[in-house]
Amino acid sequence: MQAWKDYQAANKDRFLDELLELLRIPSVSARSEHKSDMETCAAAVKERLLQAGADKAEIVATPGHPVVYAEKMIDPSKPVVLVYGHYDVQPADPLELWHSGPFEPTIKDGKIFARGACDDKGQFYMHIKALETLMQTNSLPVNLKFIIEGEEEVGSPNLADFVKQNKELLKADVILISDTSMISMDAPSIDVGVRGLTYIEIEVTGANRDLHSGVYGGAVANPITILAKMIASLHDADNHITIPGFYDDVVEATKDERAALAQAPYNEEVYKQELGVNALWGEKGYTTNERTGIRPTLEINGIWGGYTGEGSKTVLPSKAFAKISCRLVPNQKSDKMEKLLIDHLYKIAPPSVQVKVSPHHGGDPYMTPVDSIEYKAAAKAIEATFGKAPVPVRGGGSIPITALFESELGCKVVFLGFGLDNDNLHSPNEKYDIANFYKGIETIPYFHQFYAEMKA
Amino acid sequence: MQAWKDYQAANKDRFLDELLELLRIPSVSARSEHKSDMETCAAAVKERLLQAGADKAEIVATPGHPVVYAEKMIDPSKPVVLVYGHYDVQPADPLELWHSGPFEPTIKDGKIFARGACDDKGQFYMHIKALETLMQTNSLPVNLKFIIEGEEEVGSPNLADFVKQNKELLKADVILISDTSMISMDAPSIDVGVRGLTYIEIEVTGANRDLHSGVYGGAVANPITILAKMIASLHDADNHITIPGFYDDVVEATKDERAALAQAPYNEEVYKQELGVNALWGEKGYTTNERTGIRPTLEINGIWGGYTGEGSKTVLPSKAFAKISCRLVPNQKSDKMEKLLIDHLYKIAPPSVQVKVSPHHGGDPYMTPVDSIEYKAAAKAIEATFGKAPVPVRGGGSIPITALFESELGCKVVFLGFGLDNDNLHSPNEKYDIANFYKGIETIPYFHQFYAEMKA
Repeated sequence: MQAWKDYQAANKDRFLDELLELLRIPSVSARSEHKSDMETCAAAVKERLLQAGADKAEIVATPGHPVVYAEKMIDPSKPVVLVYGHYDVQPADPLELWHSGPFEPTIKDGKIFARGACDDKGQFYMHIKALETLMQTNSLPVNLKFIIEGEEEVGSPNLADFVKQNKELLKADVILISDTSMISMDAPSIDVGVRGLTYIEIEVTGANRDLHSGVYGGAVANPITILAKMIASLHDADNHITIPGFYDDVVEATKDERAALAQAPYNEEVYKQELGVNALWGEKGYTTNERTGIRPTLEINGIWGGYTGEGSKTVLPSKAFAKISCRLVPNQKSDKMEKLLIDHLYKIAPPSVQVKVSPHHGGDPYMTPVDSIEYKAAAKAIEATFGKAPVPVRGGGSIPITALFESELGCKVVFLGFGLDNDNLHSPNEKYDIANFYKGIETIPYFHQFYAEMKA
Repeated sequence: MQAWKDYQAANKDRFLDELLELLRIPSVSARSEHKSDMETCAAAVKERLLQAGADKAEIVATPGHPVVYAEKMIDPSKPVVLVYGHYDVQPADPLELWHSGPFEPTIKDGKIFARGACDDKGQFYMHIKALETLMQTNSLPVNLKFIIEGEEEVGSPNLADFVKQNKELLKADVILISDTSMISMDAPSIDVGVRGLTYIEIEVTGANRDLHSGVYGGAVANPITILAKMIASLHDADNHITIPGFYDDVVEATKDERAALAQAPYNEEVYKQELGVNALWGEKGYTTNERTGIRPTLEINGIWGGYTGEGSKTVLPSKAFAKISCRLVPNQKSDKMEKLLIDHLYKIAPPSVQVKVSPHHGGDPYMTPVDSIEYKAAAKAIEATFGKAPVPVRGGGSIPITALFESELGCKVVFLGFGLDNDNLHSPNEKYDIANFYKGIETIPYFHQFYAEMKA
């Protein structure tokens, strides 16, 4: 549509400036000291939705951070597209590794560097600018609803209740999410699956106080040593996860799917070089794309205990801690896997320590059928703007709420993501290529257009 | 000696007040921000030595924290006793576990709670008050030298050079150190050995940046997992240390020594209860007293990596770190064991990570012969004030400089320690029983007296 292109070309600098403004708000959901930043950010999102053309927008309180809901209803006979995104971001630390302030968005080499640039402010904002484009060109082909939440990075603890309590309000034909990546601008792809997640924290206690490692060393369990032994036992020599029953519910990928994955562009030397590693690590019998897509994983996200300061301290610590998460694939269920993990950790703890395991959050894996109208509309939209059909791939990340959307709202979810794997999500120097931001704004109206046509 | 007793009884409150004043100086050698506190503390120690009767006292600069040297020379025909102690203390953290400020000494139930109360301010200060007692009662039977250093808790990195460069100044017949414990006031004991130490820090690097655990998890080595596996491999199922050659130089304790150790009062239920543990942990085939006395150990003193803050972060970290130390027994040499440990860590690191190991500090183990005049004088002094002969035991801690004292100065070291194992050395709520402080001041003059007589 030439009208869309013209409008976007005339307003592109403003679109970018508006995003940068949003990125300046440090909306870190995990940290209680950012509570008011979260409120500021929710208010800004609501305002932008109204400015873009929503005829209703509101901030809905939850027991945690608020949800922003908005809609533009044009015709009850047209399909309803529900856009989901999140305005919260990951914590920015370690701060010392950022080349520019995480909340002082900086443009370099055509990329926006800032926490949330890609995950997910830069991506959900494309949908707001797509709405604006369609409104200003009088061409909105669908009814649009928006649900932009503030707790995705902490596992969406309150969104399930919100969805369950607002099923009528959220009623839709398809849910559209831009919070994933594509292989590259030259090899556009669509994630047809996201992995599920279970996340726990373990506390291992030895003696009731820190001890002198000389006076007690050798006679009392060191909780760090014990925790290390417990963690070490979770993967065998082939890097299979050793928790009994862990793989029971995994639907093995078919030969065809593995063959298709093997077609995705991948160069091991480039991959290793880009990460700065001499050798990769992973489950024996699977390729890198399989390890990050179709296989479940167990990662230690953090560990701490004892003396971690400057110099040396000969302490035998009382406590050691770790944060551990698993990525899940169909048909593993988050609740079941969480219980499996927790029970296993209690079981392997030796009597010389006491162990406490607390669940953080989780979500089930999800897959979009490639033969669905929803996927087809997305593929056609990509083809319209990229000039080639996208490759369907399995994403490694998790969007915990996805499976619940389908079960509660009864419609499919499509992932229309424009990030790149090297966007440093959750890492220092998160970035989003400006070209990808614009390409997303260009592509989304086509999705609405094609989806309306296919549903007609 | 009634005159000693009378003088001490008349001045006991002041002795205590003076110690509390010293404990208020946060002389943490490991932390550069306490550099001026270290200088303040050294100046205070020098002042106290002069007040007690030293006829020479000086602060000697080193590349690190200064050493305080003092002497009271009475007669070249009398033996010289060199007292060694340290005015630096361990870091106080974790601060939140202290019931009162670590540098706000608090008296409760007859105990002084403060960092350094026992280790070692409370103990070296007994020697200054013993000097004062002998001076004020005109009964000093030996020449006395003092060397009170400021870097014991960081491994005495500059003391060896100081000793080597000042051999004439430090010339002595015996070195007396109060920096160890006894079993109890009812079961006085003398440490006839201290363990040696080697202390290193390891940094494990996976990818060149923190990664998203969904996008890369399962395909790239997690340095925490690798570090945990490396640490876990350092002890076998029987808690023997697995480093090849680790035990090669260990002189096995004789049957007689093990039988003597078995006579030391020990109640496993009380020991476990006091530590709050359900089961002990240690090397198979050895008792608790053997594990902490005659056997070498390997402890993880600290570990950190990834996200350690509030809530959850799905990061696959770039780096993980640990501080690891070994306690050594005769005839293990610190330099050799450090190299063995470092080489082993490099060797077991898998190709998927990069490892960097840095040595912190070390010291050789030391033993005082029980048939020496030095030990006999100490035993007789204990008997004079406690009413019973002390049990010779092997201490688990380390005083890194001890072995060097003997090799450079050519004289024996005697440990005349008045602490208790439950003094929370290096832990929150370090304490020193006031009764033990006074008992030390009472006992030390007897050592000087008996040693002078035996050497005559």
